[in-house]
Amino acid sequence: MISALRSKDLLGIDPLEPDEITLLLDTAESMRPIAERPIKKVPALRGRMVVNLFLEASTRTRFSFETAEKWLSADSLNFSGSRGTSVEKGETLLDTARNLQAMSPDLIVVRHSSPGVPHMLARHLKAGVINAGDGAHEHPTQALLDALTIRQHFGKLKGLRIVIAGDIAHSRVARSNVFLLAKVGADVVVCGPPTLLPPRVEELGAVATTDFDRAVEGAQVVMMLRVQLERQRRSIFPSTREYFARYGLTSERMSRASADAIVMHPGPMNRGVEIASEVADSPRSVILDQVANGVAVRMAVLYLLLAGRPWEGERDGM
Amino acid sequence: MISALRSKDLLGIDPLEPDEITLLLDTAESMRPIAERPIKKVPALRGRMVVNLFLEASTRTRFSFETAEKWLSADSLNFSGSRGTSVEKGETLLDTARNLQAMSPDLIVVRHSSPGVPHMLARHLKAGVINAGDGAHEHPTQALLDALTIRQHFGKLKGLRIVIAGDIAHSRVARSNVFLLAKVGADVVVCGPPTLLPPRVEELGAVATTDFDRAVEGAQVVMMLRVQLERQRRSIFPSTREYFARYGLTSERMSRASADAIVMHPGPMNRGVEIASEVADSPRSVILDQVANGVAVRMAVLYLLLAGRPWEGERDGM
Amino acid sequence: MISALRSKDLLGIDPLEPDEITLLLDTAESMRPIAERPIKKVPALRGRMVVNLFLEASTRTRFSFETAEKWLSADSLNFSGSRGTSVEKGETLLDTARNLQAMSPDLIVVRHSSPGVPHMLARHLKAGVINAGDGAHEHPTQALLDALTIRQHFGKLKGLRIVIAGDIAHSRVARSNVFLLAKVGADVVVCGPPTLLPPRVEELGAVATTDFDRAVEGAQVVMMLRVQLERQRRSIFPSTREYFARYGLTSERMSRASADAIVMHPGPMNRGVEIASEVADSPRSVILDQVANGVAVRMAVLYLLLAGRPWEGERDGM
Repeated sequence: MISALRSKDLLGIDPLEPDEITLLLDTAESMRPIAERPIKKVPALRGRMVVNLFLEASTRTRFSFETAEKWLSADSLNFSGSRGTSVEKGETLLDTARNLQAMSPDLIVVRHSSPGVPHMLARHLKAGVINAGDGAHEHPTQALLDALTIRQHFGKLKGLRIVIAGDIAHSRVARSNVFLLAKVGADVVVCGPPTLLPPRVEELGAVATTDFDRAVEGAQVVMMLRVQLERQRRSIFPSTREYFARYGLTSERMSRASADAIVMHPGPMNRGVEIASEVADSPRSVILDQVANGVAVRMAVLYLLLAGRPWEGERDGM
Repeated sequence: MISALRSKDLLGIDPLEPDEITLLLDTAESMRPIAERPIKKVPALRGRMVVNLFLEASTRTRFSFETAEKWLSADSLNFSGSRGTSVEKGETLLDTARNLQAMSPDLIVVRHSSPGVPHMLARHLKAGVINAGDGAHEHPTQALLDALTIRQHFGKLKGLRIVIAGDIAHSRVARSNVFLLAKVGADVVVCGPPTLLPPRVEELGAVATTDFDRAVEGAQVVMMLRVQLERQRRSIFPSTREYFARYGLTSERMSRASADAIVMHPGPMNRGVEIASEVADSPRSVILDQVANGVAVRMAVLYLLLAGRPWEGERDGM
Repeated sequence: MISALRSKDLLGIDPLEPDEITLLLDTAESMRPIAERPIKKVPALRGRMVVNLFLEASTRTRFSFETAEKWLSADSLNFSGSRGTSVEKGETLLDTARNLQAMSPDLIVVRHSSPGVPHMLARHLKAGVINAGDGAHEHPTQALLDALTIRQHFGKLKGLRIVIAGDIAHSRVARSNVFLLAKVGADVVVCGPPTLLPPRVEELGAVATTDFDRAVEGAQVVMMLRVQLERQRRSIFPSTREYFARYGLTSERMSRASADAIVMHPGPMNRGVEIASEVADSPRSVILDQVANGVAVRMAVLYLLLAGRPWEGERDGM
C-alpha cells in the first residue's frame, strides 16, 4: 500500500496508477464520517491557501471544492468567470501562471474550457494543481467520486458491467470514468448516437454501441450523461423528445439491467431528456450519494496533495 | 420566556409567535456590544457552514449577513447572481435543493425574486433556511431590525403609532413589518397611492390610507419605503416630482408627527424621491441605527437557529 | 525611527512623509519570509474585518490584497464589480459609505475608476481606507512594492536613475511612483509620446522626455507601463507596431542602460507592445519579484493601519 500520490498535481485519471486510485478512494472513504458530525471541521490543512480558479461556469463543482476546503480548515481564494480578469486584458495564460506562483499559493483548483490548461499551469507552478474540468478532456474528481459511489454499493469495482450513456464524444466525465474503470478492471460500455461516439473509443478500454436497450442488459451500473442542450440544438439529433425515445433512461429500460443495478448522473439533470423523473427519484438512484461523495473525494485529493502523508483521523483532529 | 425558536427555519414573520419575536430581539440586543469591541469575533458558531444563496441582486443584505457570520466565526460559502449557475442550466430548483443538502450545509440564507422559494428549500433540506427576501412576500430580518430599532428608541413596541409609506403593494419590507407590528400590538397605518395599496391590507392588521399628511399626524414612527424607480417608470404615477409632492417625507410633513417621532428607511434611499435629504440626515433619522441593528439581528437569527440554545455571552467567548 | 503611520488611511504616496515610506518598506521587508514558510499564516490580525471593495475590474491587485489578509488571519469581505450593487440602484456614494460604517468594518480596501473616491470614503468612515487605485490618480501600494523591489536590488533608492516609460498622463502607477521616488531622492525620468506626457510633470519631481533611447542611457531602473490598448486604439498613436518601434523596451535599448540595470512592469504585460518578450524574461527582469513584494507590502500596510504598532515577528506568531 502506498502512502502518497506520486505527483504534486491531479491532472487526470489517465496518469494515475491503480494503487493511487485505491489510496484516493480509501482516503475519501475515511473522510466521509466528517459530514455526519455537528461540527464538520478538522484542522488538517489550517493555514494552507487554495486558489479556486473557475474560468468556466460551474456551481456544484466549485461549491463541492469550497466545502471540502473549509471542512479541512484551508483558506480559499476564489476567482470565477472570465470577465474582468487579467486573462481578458490580453495577458498570456503563462504570465497569469507565473504571477499566481509569485504569490505563493499552496494549491490551485482550475476549471477551464480549453483542454490542457491545468497541465500548462502545473508545469510552471511549484504549487500543486487540481484539474476541476478542462474542456472535453478530463474531470478526475468526478470519476473518483463515481468510483467511490459504485464501490460503496458493490464493495468492488472489478468485473462490474458499467454502461455510460449520452454524449460520449464531448464528455470529460465519460473520458475520466472510462480511464478509471478500465484501470480497475470493470467492463465498460459506452453508448450514444453515432454522432456522439468518439472514434477509437475502444483504445481507451471501453466497448462502444449505439443500441441503448442492448447495452443496459445485465448492467450493474447505468451512468447517464447530461445532454448539453445548447450544443445539441445545433441539430446533432432532431429533438429532445427523439433523444429521450432512443437514449433516455426509463423504468422500462432499467428493468433490463441487473436486479441490483444502480443509476448515476453527474448533474445537473435534464429530467425528461436523458433520464425519466421516476428513474432519477427511484430507490436505485444513487445520484445524491454521488454529490455527498464529491466532497469526500475532494477532501481526499486536497489532503493527499497538501499534507503529503496518509490521513490519520486522530492526528488531524478528527 | 422561551429559550429557542420553534422552527429550524426563519421563513417569515407571519409564522412566528410573539414570544419568538421577543427572544430574537432580546438576543440581538445582547449581541450589539460586539460591534463596539476592537476584535469583533466570538467563537460561538465556529465550524458551522452557512451558504449565502443570493439569486437576486443585493449588496447590503448580503454584506450584513456575511458580517454577522464572520463575527460569530461561522464559515460562509457565497453564491450571488443567477448567471452561470446550475439553475440556469435547466436544473429544477428542487434538484438544486437536494444537491445542496447532499453537501451537508448547516444553514442556508436565500434571497430570490420568486415568493416561496425559501419555503420550498426548507421543506427539502435538513439544514435551516433563512429567508433574506423572497419576491414581494417577506423579508423577516428587515422587520426584526426595524422593530429592534424602534424598541431601542421607545423602550416598547406596543401602542406606538407607526406609519409605513410608499409602494405597499409590492413591498416585502412592508408586509413583514405589518405582520410583526400587528403581533406586538402597535397601531400600523400603511399609506401610498391607491395603485400601490394592496387589496385587503386590513386583514394583515393595518389601517390603509392614501392621505400621507393625515397619516403622519401624531405618528411616533415614519417608515419610508424605497421607490422602485424601474417599476414606477412604467407610469404607476406621473413623475418622481409628482410622487415627492404627494408622498415624499419633507420636514414640513415630519412637523405633523409626534414631537419624539423617528424616521426610518430600509435603504438604499432615493433622496428627493421618497425622502428629503434634510429629513434623512436630521437628528430624527435612525436610518444608520437600522443598518447597525441589521448585523445584530442576523447574528441573533444565525445563533438561535444553529446553536439551538439561548445566547450566554461568557460561554460563547464574549 | 517612527513606529506607526500618521494617518488611519493610506490614500496615496503624496501625503506620506519619507519616514513613513521607510517604515512601510522595512515592515514589508520583515514580512517577506512568511512567503517561504510551509504554513504562511500568522495570527497578527485575527478577528479584524477587511472589506475589499473593487468597483473597477482587477484580478491581481485584489488577489494580492486577499492573500495578504489571509496570511495575517484577517477576515475578508469581498465586493467586486459595479453591477447589482447599491451604487447602481441610485444610492449616493456617501450613503454607501455611511452604510458601510454602520456595519463597523475595521478597514476598507477600495478600487474605483473615479479619482478621490477613497478620500471621500476616508472622510466619512471611522475605519481606515486603503486606496487600491483611483482612476488616474494614485495607486500607493504599487509604488511601495516597486520601491521595495528596487531597494532589494540596489540596497538604496537615493541617487538611482529611474526611467518610467509609457502612458504617463493616464497612469496612477506613474504618478505614485514619481511621488515616492522624488521623496526619497531618486532621479526620475518619465518618457512617452508627447500626447501621453502630462503637463507640468516637472512639478511632481521628474524630468520629462519623448526620446526613449536617450532616456534609457545609464539608467539603473527601467519601468515600463502597460499600454491601455482600448484607450490607445482611439488613435493616440498610429499602431502598436509603431508604438513598439519608438517606445517598446527591446534588448537593444536595454544595452544602453547601466550594466546592473533592472527591468520592471506592473503587469499585466502586453508582450510585443510595450516590452519585448526576451526582455521580460531576461535575468534583468524583476517583474515577478514585484508580484511577490506586492503581498509583503500589502501585509505591511494592513498591519500598520490595523495593529497601530511596529511589527514584531515573535509577538505576532511569526
